[in-house]
Amino acid sequence: MAYIDLPIAPSLGREFPGIVGLMTFRPETAAPINDLVNVLLRGESTLTAGERELIATHVSWRNDCFFCQTIHGAVAAAQLRNDEELVQAVKTDWLHADISPKMKALLNIAGKVQQGGKHVTEGDVSAAREQGATDREIHDVVLIAAVFCMCNRYVDGLGTWAPTEAAMYRANAAEIVERGYSAVTDSASAMVAR
Amino acid sequence: MAYIDLPIAPSLGREFPGIVGLMTFRPETAAPINDLVNVLLRGESTLTAGERELIATHVSWRNDCFFCQTIHGAVAAAQLRNDEELVQAVKTDWLHADISPKMKALLNIAGKVQQGGKHVTEGDVSAAREQGATDREIHDVVLIAAVFCMCNRYVDGLGTWAPTEAAMYRANAAEIVERGYSAVTDSASAMVAR
Repeated sequence: MAYIDLPIAPSLGREFPGIVGLMTFRPETAAPINDLVNVLLRGESTLTAGERELIATHVSWRNDCFFCQTIHGAVAAAQLRNDEELVQAVKTDWLHADISPKMKALLNIAGKVQQGGKHVTEGDVSAAREQGATDREIHDVVLIAAVFCMCNRYVDGLGTWAPTEAAMYRANAAEIVERGYSAVTDSASAMVAR
Repeated sequence: MAYIDLPIAPSLGREFPGIVGLMTFRPETAAPINDLVNVLLRGESTLTAGERELIATHVSWRNDCFFCQTIHGAVAAAQLRNDEELVQAVKTDWLHADISPKMKALLNIAGKVQQGGKHVTEGDVSAAREQGATDREIHDVVLIAAVFCMCNRYVDGLGTWAPTEAAMYRANAAEIVERGYSAVTDSASAMVAR
């Protein structure tokens, strides 16, 4: 049970989990949040969608947000040859994970942003640039990390529930990969009794 | 100088300060961020615009983001009979500030969100409800606090600059009160040489 009364999803007999339940409660704020996440995680970029989902997953893990780290981890795995071990390594042992030196430098920046914006130094940015990161990539990584500091707080600050079955996240991830964040949430909003 | 190369504003001979410079760099993400902030801070609500700006200011002060706490503090003051002392009290001594018990209960929740979503308890929410806060108000306060945890990290994580003159923030605040966040940023984007 969330801290506030959310619309009930007939298929579940309770509210939708995580951010989806909140988005059915307040579609006016859901729309720009989904637009922002779609541009950052699925829009045109020189980072792959899987790499960007790994950054979202790592930040959500650092913020201890079970719903966000699990759904974005499932989306990342779906976009990285179903490599769930890699996703787990990027959460807990990213320095030794099988990812590029550029991704490690970008994850270092994302982790600093999670702690607070002022933790990021000129040296962190130079290190990413030395590994080939562009200004646009550095910008997007900082903003992705910042966006998940928002989403994680939104989801946990209102006490939403989260399923525990990995199969449920895998199924939802497949739908997100195919249709995008806005479409999936719009479907949920259409389903709730308002 | 920000950590990445931002477009130069001819009127300043350098980039626009704070989030505005970042928004001229990446208009695709600026649009949904401004939409979200406009809905939350300026849209229909039973909280006044001034009260919502106080929440944004308090969270930005907690995150030590000079640009955000100063511009939103100036917007709050503009909407609260230019009471800059009240704004300062809400930053540093909100428990004793001249605000309603409901606003104190909502600021308590916002401060918990700033620390992390899981810091908010059922008791914090009940205390706000006892002071008359509605589910919609509690939702919006949590999301406003979360949004500023994003914006503060975005602004400081990319090392943007901030003016120090209070008069500059007062002038920008007057423009924001009149025209809204999207319009002010759109004007800045139109001004930069791209």
